Amino acid sequence: MGALTTQSGRSLAALSETEIIQRIVAALSDACPVFPAGPGGDCAVFENQSDQKYRVSTIDSVILGRHFDLACSGAKAGRKLVQRNLSDLAAAGATPSDALLSFIVGADVESDWLEDFAHGAGRAAANVGLKIVGGDICRGTMGTFSATLALQGHSSRILTRHTCQVGDIIFVTGKLGGSIYGHHLDFMARLKEGQWLCAQSTVTACTDLSDGLAKDLPGLIGSRFNARIDLGAVPISEDAQALAKADGKPGLEHALQDGEDYELLFTSSPTQADLIAATFQKNFPKTLLSQIGKVEAGKGEVFSLADNQPIKSGGFSHFD
Amino acid sequence: MGALTTQSGRSLAALSETEIIQRIVAALSDACPVFPAGPGGDCAVFENQSDQKYRVSTIDSVILGRHFDLACSGAKAGRKLVQRNLSDLAAAGATPSDALLSFIVGADVESDWLEDFAHGAGRAAANVGLKIVGGDICRGTMGTFSATLALQGHSSRILTRHTCQVGDIIFVTGKLGGSIYGHHLDFMARLKEGQWLCAQSTVTACTDLSDGLAKDLPGLIGSRFNARIDLGAVPISEDAQALAKADGKPGLEHALQDGEDYELLFTSSPTQADLIAATFQKNFPKTLLSQIGKVEAGKGEVFSLADNQPIKSGGFSHFD
Repeated sequence: MGALTTQSGRSLAALSETEIIQRIVAALSDACPVFPAGPGGDCAVFENQSDQKYRVSTIDSVILGRHFDLACSGAKAGRKLVQRNLSDLAAAGATPSDALLSFIVGADVESDWLEDFAHGAGRAAANVGLKIVGGDICRGTMGTFSATLALQGHSSRILTRHTCQVGDIIFVTGKLGGSIYGHHLDFMARLKEGQWLCAQSTVTACTDLSDGLAKDLPGLIGSRFNARIDLGAVPISEDAQALAKADGKPGLEHALQDGEDYELLFTSSPTQADLIAATFQKNFPKTLLSQIGKVEAGKGEVFSLADNQPIKSGGFSHFD
Repeated sequence: MGALTTQSGRSLAALSETEIIQRIVAALSDACPVFPAGPGGDCAVFENQSDQKYRVSTIDSVILGRHFDLACSGAKAGRKLVQRNLSDLAAAGATPSDALLSFIVGADVESDWLEDFAHGAGRAAANVGLKIVGGDICRGTMGTFSATLALQGHSSRILTRHTCQVGDIIFVTGKLGGSIYGHHLDFMARLKEGQWLCAQSTVTACTDLSDGLAKDLPGLIGSRFNARIDLGAVPISEDAQALAKADGKPGLEHALQDGEDYELLFTSSPTQADLIAATFQKNFPKTLLSQIGKVEAGKGEVFSLADNQPIKSGGFSHFD
């Protein structure tokens, strides 16, 4: 048994991302605590003995050829690394504090481009008061570049997944789909919005959209609930419409299935939903907020309100 | 300007690891605090408002083909990732608390091998009470595997670099050199020893040996001091002797220049050095401790005690 195999049935190509993660978590065994202290949310959550009652942490990478291409400027790629991680903190409603930055780089990576990457990452961090306190650089094979950020934050309350109730109203920020046309490099994590939502006691659960609404919604509600979605209320981005024209798929399908929206998907108790919506829009007049459905008893499935048809996840999965 | 270049003068191949890190730190600008809160030590250090006065963090990776080869078991590679990071915490004298684990894997990575990797990492973590609380997995190019661990710890006092004084005595644990013969996969981080040293107020500075004594010693003492080393007192490992027979270089050169010893290099005030040595050996009878030299005023250079010759660093550097 070696690290690599030529038999595809024994390789990771034969497994879904979910299956791979399940195997890793099982193998980590006693070292791996259960959710929410362990894997399963946007961040890991720790209780503190201080005013900032919770500490949260998350880790995410960007890889050349996967999260950006050869034509992408270093500054945009570096900015994306920071914003991707900040989006996980936004979903928790936390304030970023410090981060570690690790590189694996081929010897043929351009030194000016790498410097530009650090500029972009540094500016995105400084804009939200995040300190990059340390890191590491290792040489990888020629033609490769990856950077990983491990991010810490804190908050007096934390938003997480699997904490909604039957009857809760489902909201989403922004417009969805077509991120590949540019949004995936240009978005700003919804940090202020997440912190505001976290301060509202009637907001019950939250996640950020990274793998597409149809895949992330079951992740938000958990296995004891279903979601019923008004497909007419799902906000479709202009890029999703443009992509629809190019590939012939409906714009709605892009809005449901495309990854890298980095918008917030959250639930609110039904009696306070109108108030949450109105107050949110007052605080964030430039951020579209859409009420798209509600939570029902169930088993982690999503249905269309109009015709009761299941909405399957064909969303982005790293190993499909 | 793109991520990769075919002009070697514009690529990272033209720079040393130190130059690359200096450029990144400069480019991160305001986002990057100065040492010891920022880069330059084994860990980044934060002050807390709790009994555990300090929080520390560090990040490190293992890469297939660089830190282990195709013949290495998953369990050994996973164990190495955890021990490498723990060694940085040992140098600070801190207690590990939680970590995030990130993978970048080609689709041809064997799934059983990856599971074995997680087993090895999980066991090494559980042995020291470290929790792996979250992570991430991304697909990389075929034939590649890397794993990155971001580790947090805490302590009521922290050992760091650049804090020794003129006259301090220099000690090193274990035997040095020849790690490539197996030690680099089989070592245990000197966590207990580091915590004990940290509790002794007369221990003034500490680091772990990852790039070789000749390179790590200037890093420990900093630019205001020199070190004078009794080369006859440098502990040479059996593997360094065996390697010397194979390649014709002196065993001492391997002990000074080889990387991945993962031993502790520390300084103590001269009046208490004998007491530190005796009490250390009583507490850790199986860990060799050698007094190898002393700290003088200077500018970050290392000299031989016997003949006053400079000891240059030809130690391991990732980009040479």
